[in-house]
Amino acid sequence: MPLLFTNAAQVVTCAGPARARRGIEMRDAGILTGAAVAVDGGRIVDVGPAGELERRHARFERVDCGGGVLTPGLVDSHTHAVFGRPRADEQELRAAGLDYMEIARRGGGIHASVRDLRSRTEEDLLTLAVARLRRLASHGTTTVEVKSGYGLTLEDELKSLRVIAGAASIVQIRLVPTFLGAHEIPLEARATPDGRTNYISLLVHEMIPTVARQGLARFADVFCEPGAYTVDESRQILDAARRAGLGVKLHADELRPSGGAELAVELGATSADHLGAITDAGIEALAASDTVATLLPGTLLFLGKERQAPARALVDRGAAVALATDFNPGTSPTPNFPLILTLGVSQLRLSATEALLAATVNGAAALGLAGETGQLAPGFRADLALFEMEDVRELPYWYGDRRCRATWVDGAPAWSA
Amino acid sequence: MPLLFTNAAQVVTCAGPARARRGIEMRDAGILTGAAVAVDGGRIVDVGPAGELERRHARFERVDCGGGVLTPGLVDSHTHAVFGRPRADEQELRAAGLDYMEIARRGGGIHASVRDLRSRTEEDLLTLAVARLRRLASHGTTTVEVKSGYGLTLEDELKSLRVIAGAASIVQIRLVPTFLGAHEIPLEARATPDGRTNYISLLVHEMIPTVARQGLARFADVFCEPGAYTVDESRQILDAARRAGLGVKLHADELRPSGGAELAVELGATSADHLGAITDAGIEALAASDTVATLLPGTLLFLGKERQAPARALVDRGAAVALATDFNPGTSPTPNFPLILTLGVSQLRLSATEALLAATVNGAAALGLAGETGQLAPGFRADLALFEMEDVRELPYWYGDRRCRATWVDGAPAWSA
Repeated sequence: MPLLFTNAAQVVTCAGPARARRGIEMRDAGILTGAAVAVDGGRIVDVGPAGELERRHARFERVDCGGGVLTPGLVDSHTHAVFGRPRADEQELRAAGLDYMEIARRGGGIHASVRDLRSRTEEDLLTLAVARLRRLASHGTTTVEVKSGYGLTLEDELKSLRVIAGAASIVQIRLVPTFLGAHEIPLEARATPDGRTNYISLLVHEMIPTVARQGLARFADVFCEPGAYTVDESRQILDAARRAGLGVKLHADELRPSGGAELAVELGATSADHLGAITDAGIEALAASDTVATLLPGTLLFLGKERQAPARALVDRGAAVALATDFNPGTSPTPNFPLILTLGVSQLRLSATEALLAATVNGAAALGLAGETGQLAPGFRADLALFEMEDVRELPYWYGDRRCRATWVDGAPAWSA
Repeated sequence: MPLLFTNAAQVVTCAGPARARRGIEMRDAGILTGAAVAVDGGRIVDVGPAGELERRHARFERVDCGGGVLTPGLVDSHTHAVFGRPRADEQELRAAGLDYMEIARRGGGIHASVRDLRSRTEEDLLTLAVARLRRLASHGTTTVEVKSGYGLTLEDELKSLRVIAGAASIVQIRLVPTFLGAHEIPLEARATPDGRTNYISLLVHEMIPTVARQGLARFADVFCEPGAYTVDESRQILDAARRAGLGVKLHADELRPSGGAELAVELGATSADHLGAITDAGIEALAASDTVATLLPGTLLFLGKERQAPARALVDRGAAVALATDFNPGTSPTPNFPLILTLGVSQLRLSATEALLAATVNGAAALGLAGETGQLAPGFRADLALFEMEDVRELPYWYGDRRCRATWVDGAPAWSA
């Protein structure tokens, strides 16, 4: 059924180039008043003055936006939403002074989730993932990237990716699967002299080709960080991913600088993520590239860090900056994407417009979906979110609240309050 | 109808002394498994093993907690919930580098809300306040302190306090009204040589006595801060409040130290609030007193400050620490009290237990309601919150989410999802 969205206080199109960068496109979210959006065949077919659209699309079914704000559905380009037990205990250990790497060394951190995920059935993990993805959807998100990475064996990684595929057929939102077998070096590989080399060889020669052959992932990602994978190892793994036809993404310079951003650019990665410790050279490299700089301020907040990624420098020098939740059990268990926009403004010093574009247009670019979602413009998929507010600047403002009233994906209702 | 709350994964009593301080009571939230809570006549009458309570209260109506976590309803002891326009514009000015006092000097800040509130009818403000208080209630809060302070004339302050009284008769949660005529020096008083003296005289001789006579407030509060009220002025105003029979609270040492905490103790204030810039002497004074140290970490987060109040030192030296949202249009527009608990752990380095006690027992103490609410123990009012989780440590963990399923106040349903 074709739909006509009317009676919105604002229609915020986020329309513009495939990547919003410094300059006019980062200062203008395309806020229309008195506007309507027409949807047909799952695509947006018309955006403009309500009166004109009412005439042009007289037989479209009306969706009354009730004076709320209509935006592109939010695009969350970085999550680890397939996991078992919540790791609330570690939050307290951190509060007591233990740091991330210290908790990992004690068998907590990623390894705790790995042990847990390996012990669970695919069915159990699917039930948990679906419930959690619905929570993400309830805050206005319509596209979610989901990484594997708590399996770290061929079978457990395939299990995780099948959970993502299974969830995609159950939830109404769009999922983008990413293979993150290189999330950590498995403990059993750390325990033997050639375990590390063997695991990387397994990634390159068996896991990546299998994942690609089964069509279970669109991207491959590596946690490139001192203590996890080196720059050389990351390059080796992602080269294999490219050869297998996967897009590449990179966890880069999260806590300590190691040249991750530069590697991402060298490899033509779709995104470089985290960047809390990026160097000036890394910023320049991203600014001169099409690799999206994906910032995850919730993670550094939840970890109690004072330093955030240099978002202002990235935007001002011309990088395409995206925001995402990093939803995961250890360092960012929030499903509330608008709260990440709040941190984008309050912690990263973005404007509300920049934060919104980072969560829509640039989130889409970070998933290779530029031109498909993240903008309200003819030809784009009809992915929309309706928020209970009069001005889109209230989205980062009412922090921690749940203001989303409804979302649509491909023109079909995906969530409603 | 007497009620028996059963089938909770945990009943978290928070039972103990009137103020939770360092030592055993700050390490133990009273987590019971297999427990039930019996409620009769709006009060809790029994807490203990489910089997025993099932027998003792066989005819009580069962409330099935569905495997969730049952806690005391959260007590939010510091809000400014009566206001008009949201000030989302100022969030961007701050992101662009303007500070709090600078925005105030340009006619933004509190003065912007004052202009706005004065122009609105009582009915309009009541509608807005009720909608916003319901949002606070939706996150598990059952008692909310609400301050006036955007009127700054006798008539507009009385109007604000009448809005609180009106809202209290509409919403199902408990409201505690506080007179904050000393929120700022009104602009018109700043414009004349003796305006400041005259306004303080108006507060002392007319506003406070009138508010007390009309029974519109339980507390008086002053914004004691360089640029607002001095320590001497604050003392003069709060002395008048005490003479009029009001309890006293104090906005103390928020951004710069000025001896506010010490003044609060000297006056026997029920609470000293903010304390982002408290001195060692202030910490010692609070630790040796019954004045609750109320911390508002959301405010400093939203303002983009890196420094938070020294919560760890306050708790460790023996002060009774409360957490609150500071819900207000300029510096903390969050209705999500559990998110403040997250900041209590991640930013203030409290344990999850300390954060919960700070939001229940000590929140109640900060409102003179110790022994009435904030604990699940016989004799207390039946103010309860039910959260969708298996372990109470998940309350600060799933940050930004809305996990509350239902609340009760005086044994009556107050909110449900």
